[in-house]
Amino acid sequence: MSNPKDDKMTIPQEKITAWLEELMDFVRIPSISADPQHRNDMSKAAEWLISRLRKQGAVNIENDLFEGIPMVTADLPCVVPGAPVILIYGHYDVQPTGDPEEWLSAPFDPQIRGRNIFGRGMTDMKGQIMALFAALDLILAEGELNINFKFLFEGAEEWKGSLVEGFIRENKEKLACDLVLNVDAGMIMKDYPTITYGSRGMSAGYLRITGPGKDLHCGEYGGVILNPVHALCKAVAALHDEEGRVALPGFYENLTPPPPWESESMNSLPLDDDFFLRECKAPTLWGEPGYTSLERCWTRPILEVVDIQTGEMRPSISPTAEAFLIFRLVPGQSPEKIKKSLLKYLDECIPGAVNWELRDWGGFSASLSNPYSPAAAKMAGALEEIWKKPPVLARSGGSLPMARFIDEHLGVQTILTGFQLPEDNMHASNEKLDIDNWIKGIAALRLFFRSLSAEDFLYPENKE
Amino acid sequence: MSNPKDDKMTIPQEKITAWLEELMDFVRIPSISADPQHRNDMSKAAEWLISRLRKQGAVNIENDLFEGIPMVTADLPCVVPGAPVILIYGHYDVQPTGDPEEWLSAPFDPQIRGRNIFGRGMTDMKGQIMALFAALDLILAEGELNINFKFLFEGAEEWKGSLVEGFIRENKEKLACDLVLNVDAGMIMKDYPTITYGSRGMSAGYLRITGPGKDLHCGEYGGVILNPVHALCKAVAALHDEEGRVALPGFYENLTPPPPWESESMNSLPLDDDFFLRECKAPTLWGEPGYTSLERCWTRPILEVVDIQTGEMRPSISPTAEAFLIFRLVPGQSPEKIKKSLLKYLDECIPGAVNWELRDWGGFSASLSNPYSPAAAKMAGALEEIWKKPPVLARSGGSLPMARFIDEHLGVQTILTGFQLPEDNMHASNEKLDIDNWIKGIAALRLFFRSLSAEDFLYPENKE
Repeated sequence: MSNPKDDKMTIPQEKITAWLEELMDFVRIPSISADPQHRNDMSKAAEWLISRLRKQGAVNIENDLFEGIPMVTADLPCVVPGAPVILIYGHYDVQPTGDPEEWLSAPFDPQIRGRNIFGRGMTDMKGQIMALFAALDLILAEGELNINFKFLFEGAEEWKGSLVEGFIRENKEKLACDLVLNVDAGMIMKDYPTITYGSRGMSAGYLRITGPGKDLHCGEYGGVILNPVHALCKAVAALHDEEGRVALPGFYENLTPPPPWESESMNSLPLDDDFFLRECKAPTLWGEPGYTSLERCWTRPILEVVDIQTGEMRPSISPTAEAFLIFRLVPGQSPEKIKKSLLKYLDECIPGAVNWELRDWGGFSASLSNPYSPAAAKMAGALEEIWKKPPVLARSGGSLPMARFIDEHLGVQTILTGFQLPEDNMHASNEKLDIDNWIKGIAALRLFFRSLSAEDFLYPENKE
Repeated sequence: MSNPKDDKMTIPQEKITAWLEELMDFVRIPSISADPQHRNDMSKAAEWLISRLRKQGAVNIENDLFEGIPMVTADLPCVVPGAPVILIYGHYDVQPTGDPEEWLSAPFDPQIRGRNIFGRGMTDMKGQIMALFAALDLILAEGELNINFKFLFEGAEEWKGSLVEGFIRENKEKLACDLVLNVDAGMIMKDYPTITYGSRGMSAGYLRITGPGKDLHCGEYGGVILNPVHALCKAVAALHDEEGRVALPGFYENLTPPPPWESESMNSLPLDDDFFLRECKAPTLWGEPGYTSLERCWTRPILEVVDIQTGEMRPSISPTAEAFLIFRLVPGQSPEKIKKSLLKYLDECIPGAVNWELRDWGGFSASLSNPYSPAAAKMAGALEEIWKKPPVLARSGGSLPMARFIDEHLGVQTILTGFQLPEDNMHASNEKLDIDNWIKGIAALRLFFRSLSAEDFLYPENKE
């Protein structure tokens, strides 16, 4: 086999042009999972993937409709007997487009402007999937594969993120592998290639407070019963102290603190208070005292109330008031324990003059993997080779439950990386892909695939 | 002139049938003021009134488009030189219908079922307007008028209740009168004819809190800035103490307590805690300690938060969170002072990590008139004559700003009564009119009109 480092960035322009054409075709399919009107487009996107997998030479291509969502799986076997298996995960569904007025060009009519290519799903994550196909095109053209590939493309990530868990649980044999690669995690910023080895867990759902049996005229009955909105605001207010700490008893107990290398690494990143203030555009920063902004985001647990509403918009006392609470958890915390502690706390602080319940409550623990496993080291090497600097080892303040599902049901590590940039407007209007960054990503993935050997999958120290 | 008491309830059935037919025609016009799609129906309802006024023999009928809403005015002069003028106020607009599934028959296809007649606006207040026309039909048939009538029918009461104030201010001469009759106030319950002589004032609007410059992923940025929802809940929570008192400094200062006769009268009414619990269907009653439920509703000021919302339904930290606050005020309180006190209080309790403002804030003082003025006494006599018991002298926990506008701009008393029953589903689905109660109302209005004499309008003690 030739040394891939020799030609690591010399990808012919005609190949890039062809891949971009393919990507634009993929992005033209409005596969919005959250919108039932686009169910047919979900099937079209799955068909696009099947046809691309066929072109790649994949076999055992299957399209399982799981709870109404197509789940595409396939194999790309290698010539080496007993060679390890890497499972490539991706999601082909995209976020709704929001206000069409905010888009400079139609979300599903991809446009190249300068060195960027615009469209919904361009960076999250159809462009990332296309980078994987492109890297595979390259290594298949360079010689025979020395590892086996499997594929899992799901279509509910932007809608019901945990739906895929059931599919994985029911298809353990089909998906059995030695490593999962998920390129949905992105870079912390341009020129900072990133491996994401941890993310916060979650304990989340609605707190619903109910009072009167019907909408009440707030003049005729105001002052006579406890308004559910008042009870809800008191309960939500009681969940944080004045300085921004979560007031739930025991909330900060038994947390696994980040190891010293990680604190050191975090402090060396350009993600300082100025960065957060610039990104958030809030009057000032705010949060749990005693930690930097980045520490609060990556290593401390939080509670955010992201939706609050009454039943009606009329000027009346509504029978119900609801708030959506999201606890983001860190290693050491259990979502079940948080829920139990919350139930007890609310029971003490909500008066009996209203009823209340937690509804649609669910969660999962934080996820943390070994960023120094042999396979992760190979990825780090590939990224460093292309970007000329070692990758940032990052956690995500958000939740990437896939890594946890994979670990739990398939028993293997997930390597999380990707080439999405913060300025690529993921989930927002004018989503785009930085073409040069994407080409670097293809080159890095090619290096990673070529550099892997059977020994890289022996990492018992990674297992919990 | 014959003694009207002789035939006070002997209204021929054919007249009643004809009036109900007219009323059904009126109710068939979907004059929903809040819905711009029904602008044309507003004009149709105004035309219906004009044609009815013409039938009644009214003159000077005018249809002024005031801020896009037809305001119908007219005169019905009497034969007595220098006789006093009574201005009849009514609104011809109706509430939106809400969920059509909840209606047993279509809201604008009136149906008689048993002794009730169903349709949107039937009780609030097209049926009440028809009762006025019917009473006038009767007295016109009985002989010549000895007082002058004027009419003002507006079309924005259910939408922008204070819009009519501008019209009154600009048309003082046209509307000049000695007394206003407004039959939009209803009865506290069946068999309890009611004169409403007071209502709470208001200081109300939105508290808007703004934080980040855009929607923020609550995982990526949660814990780094103050979430506007948290700040809003803390602020709303801080506005009441644990027992339900409003925590605004000075809020309960200088209140004018109800006179002893009123407390006595209130305690004799069947509006006890059981009544409120039954009406509200809440787990328990709740509110400012030391007062009965009725006292809290009629004579104590309150704050109710009737709407609370974030900007987006996405699981993100929204740039804004808003709550609609309604202070209901009692005599002695000034809406401007409440607003000032609120501004100061919020300034102290909302952290500088968010911005905030009060928007669309407005208000007016409580209104209280003399329930023992000669004209009010005549109304009480007429009601007692028909129902065989003296009317309840009630305040409303709600706000009836019309009485205040009339007092302020026309300088006369408003007599507030009406024949709406709590079970008539005002503002709700299956709104109806109790036909027998309505016939009693017509009879009482006829007695009232007939019993008035010039001396009844000399009541200087009523003026503030």
